[in-house]
Amino acid sequence: MKNAQGRKSVANGFDFSHGLEGLDADEAAVVRRRQKVLGTMGPLFYNRPLHVISGSGVHLRGADGADYLDCYNNVACVGHSNPHVRQAVADQLGRQNTHSRYLQDEVLDYAERLLATFPGAIDHVAFTNSGSESNDLALRMARVATGHMGVVVTQGAYHGITSLVSSVSPSFGTGLPLAPFLATVRVDDALHDADGLGDGTGDGADGAAASDAVWAVLGPRFNQAFDALEHGGYGVSCVLIDEVMSSDGILPGARGWIARLADAVHARGGLLISDEVQAGFGRMGGVMWGFQRHGAEADIVTMGKPMGNGIPVGGVAYRHPIGDAFAACTRYFNTFGGNPVSMRAAGAVLDEIERLGLVAHARDMGDRLARDLSEILEGHERFGGLRHAGLFLGIDVTDGADDGGAAQPDGAAARAIVNALRDDEHVLISSAGPGDAVLKVRPPLVFDDSDADRLLEAVRHICERGLFDR
Amino acid sequence: MKNAQGRKSVANGFDFSHGLEGLDADEAAVVRRRQKVLGTMGPLFYNRPLHVISGSGVHLRGADGADYLDCYNNVACVGHSNPHVRQAVADQLGRQNTHSRYLQDEVLDYAERLLATFPGAIDHVAFTNSGSESNDLALRMARVATGHMGVVVTQGAYHGITSLVSSVSPSFGTGLPLAPFLATVRVDDALHDADGLGDGTGDGADGAAASDAVWAVLGPRFNQAFDALEHGGYGVSCVLIDEVMSSDGILPGARGWIARLADAVHARGGLLISDEVQAGFGRMGGVMWGFQRHGAEADIVTMGKPMGNGIPVGGVAYRHPIGDAFAACTRYFNTFGGNPVSMRAAGAVLDEIERLGLVAHARDMGDRLARDLSEILEGHERFGGLRHAGLFLGIDVTDGADDGGAAQPDGAAARAIVNALRDDEHVLISSAGPGDAVLKVRPPLVFDDSDADRLLEAVRHICERGLFDR
Repeated sequence: MKNAQGRKSVANGFDFSHGLEGLDADEAAVVRRRQKVLGTMGPLFYNRPLHVISGSGVHLRGADGADYLDCYNNVACVGHSNPHVRQAVADQLGRQNTHSRYLQDEVLDYAERLLATFPGAIDHVAFTNSGSESNDLALRMARVATGHMGVVVTQGAYHGITSLVSSVSPSFGTGLPLAPFLATVRVDDALHDADGLGDGTGDGADGAAASDAVWAVLGPRFNQAFDALEHGGYGVSCVLIDEVMSSDGILPGARGWIARLADAVHARGGLLISDEVQAGFGRMGGVMWGFQRHGAEADIVTMGKPMGNGIPVGGVAYRHPIGDAFAACTRYFNTFGGNPVSMRAAGAVLDEIERLGLVAHARDMGDRLARDLSEILEGHERFGGLRHAGLFLGIDVTDGADDGGAAQPDGAAARAIVNALRDDEHVLISSAGPGDAVLKVRPPLVFDDSDADRLLEAVRHICERGLFDR
Repeated sequence: MKNAQGRKSVANGFDFSHGLEGLDADEAAVVRRRQKVLGTMGPLFYNRPLHVISGSGVHLRGADGADYLDCYNNVACVGHSNPHVRQAVADQLGRQNTHSRYLQDEVLDYAERLLATFPGAIDHVAFTNSGSESNDLALRMARVATGHMGVVVTQGAYHGITSLVSSVSPSFGTGLPLAPFLATVRVDDALHDADGLGDGTGDGADGAAASDAVWAVLGPRFNQAFDALEHGGYGVSCVLIDEVMSSDGILPGARGWIARLADAVHARGGLLISDEVQAGFGRMGGVMWGFQRHGAEADIVTMGKPMGNGIPVGGVAYRHPIGDAFAACTRYFNTFGGNPVSMRAAGAVLDEIERLGLVAHARDMGDRLARDLSEILEGHERFGGLRHAGLFLGIDVTDGADDGGAAQPDGAAARAIVNALRDDEHVLISSAGPGDAVLKVRPPLVFDDSDADRLLEAVRHICERGLFDR
C-alpha cells in the first residue's frame, strides 16, 4: 500500500538529512524551530532556505537584509503586498464576511466579472479555497456528469493534494498508490521541441504544422489511454490537463493541439478539464486562459494560486449542465468558498490585471525574457533549450555531452544554478520537470524592464562563472 | 453510481423549485442574479433568503435595513468585522504573504502558540485552507500510519466536501456512493438523553454513570463496526468523530465516553481523529477542544471554520510519528497552507479568545441560555428537550404527540420556527439532525447578556404565537 522508496522529493528542496552546517546562525535557528512544530511534512526551498521578512512588487526582503528579485512566485501575480488588494481586503473585513448561504453582492459581482472572461458556454462557477479543492470538485463533477470514472493526465502531472487529486498526480512518485482509474500519457518527448527554441508559442504559419506534428504523436497515445480505461470498465470521465504542464517540464508548445485533445475526449463521452491553477489569469501572455491559446473548448476550468494574490481562493467554472447533473445527486456547500473577503481580493486582482494591462504585458515581457535569455545562454554547453508561454519560462539544463543530441537532463547542474542565483545573485527561481533539470522562471506579472535587466545580468554572471558549461 | 433520489437537501434550505413569489423585490432580484452565475449548486438558507450587507459583533445588517441577531454563525467566533483580526490581516498584507517553502516567522509563531493548547503528545501541526482539506489530510495520514483503510463515523456524520471526505459523510444521503471502506455507527438514540435536559455536559457524579451507560450501548456497536472492516479486509485506520456531532442532532452528552472510544480504536491498531472543525477553539465551553471534555487521547485533531474568523485557514495537529510515517511515503505542500496572512488572522483570533476570556464565557453563556431556554420552553407540547455544550445548543422539536414517549421529530415544525424567528423576530438560527428537527443555536462566542435577552424574548414571542404547541 505504501512504499517509502517511491517517494519523490520536492524540486529544489532543502535536504534535512544533510544537517544545518551550511546555514548561517539565523537560518539554522529558524529551521530548528520549524522542525519542532512542523516536523518533516513541510518542504523548504534551496540548500540555504530563505528567511523572508517582507515583500513589495517583485522584491522580497530576507532576514539578512538583502533584496531578493522574485522570479518564481506566481501567487503574488500583481505584486507582493499589492496595496489595492490590501485595501479591498481591509475594507471588506470592516463590512462582513459570512458564507454563501446568505445572499451577498460580493460573490455575485465577482462571479459575473470572472465568467465574462470565458467563452459563453462556460457560464457558471463554484468557489473553493485552493486549486486542490477546485480540481477535486471538478473531478467529482465530471464523474457524475459523464457516469464514468476514468481520468487521463500527463505522465508527470501535478494537480494538487487532496486524496483524490494526489492519486491522479504522478509527480508525487509511487510512495502512495495512484488511482486504479487513472491512465497517464507521456507528452514531454513530443512537446519538448514542438516550437523550436525561444518562442514556445507555436504561433503563425509554423503553428498549425507544429500542432499537427504533436497530435500525430500524442493522438494515438491519448486514444490508447481512453481504450485502456474503457477496457478496464472505468470509461472516460475526463482529461485533466495543466495548460502549461509545469511539472512535466514546462511544455506550453504547439498551440492548437489541445483543441484536438478536446475533440478526442468528447468523442469518448468525456470532458476536458482545463487546470488553469498555474496557467490562468494572464500568465500565458496575450490570453486570460491557457486553453484559449489552443482555441480549445474546455468543459470545466479550475482556478487557484494567483486568483486572490495570496488570499486563499479557488474556483471551478463550468458549462451549466455539468453542475445541474451534479446538484441533482448531491449538494455542494463550501463554508469559506465565495466568502466576501476572498471575492474582494480576487476582484482587486482583476482590477490590477486590467489597470496595468498585465495580460499583454505577460506576453511582451515573456517574449523579451525568452529572447534575451536565449541570446545569453546560446552556445553554453549545458543550455539545452528554452520554452515559454508568456511569463512562464523553462530552461533545459543538460550534462552538455559533446554530441548535442545525446545531451541528458542534469538535475544536479540545474540545482547548482538555482542555488548560485539565490546565494550570490539574490535572484529566486526554481526547477521542474524530469530530474528537476528544467529551470523554472515564473515571476509576478508586474515584472518590469529593470527587473529583467537585473535577472539577465545575474544569468550573465552565472555563465561567466561557468555554471552553464561543463 | 448515482441516484438523484438519495440526495439529501441542506437543512433549512431555500426551495428553488417553489419559485420566488414569497420574496420581496430585492430578494427575488438577487436570487435571480445568483441563479444565472452560481446555478443550482449553491444552497441558500430560509424560505426568504437573507441579503446580508454588513455585520458587527453578533449583528448582521440586512438589505432591508433590519438588524439581525446572529445566533448561528460559528465562523465569526470573535464577532463579525472584528477590528483586531482586521488590523492583523491588513498589517500582514502590507508585509508579505508568500508560502511555507521559505522560512517565515508568522507560521512558527502561530504553530507554537496553537500546539501549546494541546496535550503534549499532540506536538506537530500542518496547515490547510479549510476543514475539508484538514479532514482529507488526516484520513490520508491515518491510512499511511496504520497501514489500514477502514474508517468509522457516526450514522449522520458530516466531515466535509472533498471526494474522500464526502464519501465518509453519510449526511449527504445516498445520491453518490459512500466509501466501501466505511462503517457507520448509530449514536443518536444512546446520546439523545444521555445527560437529561438543559445541561448536556454529563458533569459531576452523574457524568461517570452517564458515560458508562452510553458506552454499554455504543461500545458493542463500534466494535461491530471494527469487526466488519477487519472482515472486509480494510482493517481499522481510524474513527473520525465530530466532537459535538452536529449533523447527528447535536449530541455532546455523556462526558467521558469518547475516552472509551479512543481505547477501543487503539486496541484495533487504529487512530482517533477528533474533528474539531465545529467543536474546537472554545465553542464547547470551559475547554479549548472537544476531546478534552472527555479526557480522551486524540491522535489527530482537525480544525477549520472559526480558526481565522472567516479568513480561510485550517489545520491538522498530530502526534509526530504519524506525520513522520506520512512524510516517508509522500510529500505534503499546501500552497496557501500556513500563509502569513491566514496565520496572523488565526493569531488574532487566539488573542481575542484570551483577551475576552471566551472559553469560560462560552461555558457560562451556554449554561445561561440552556437554563433560560429550557424554562421558557418547558411545558410546550413540541418541545422535546435541549442539549448543549458551551455555546452549541440543540433543541428538539417534535410533533407533540400526547404520549410524550411517542413524540416524533417534526422537521416541518422546526422549519416554521426557524423561519418565524428570521422573518418576524430578526433572529438567525438553523436546524440539524434527523429530519432537520433539531433547532441549532450556535452564536458567535462574543454573544453577551443583552444578546441573550433578545434571543429569549424572541423565543417567548414564538411560544406565545403557539409555534411550540400543536
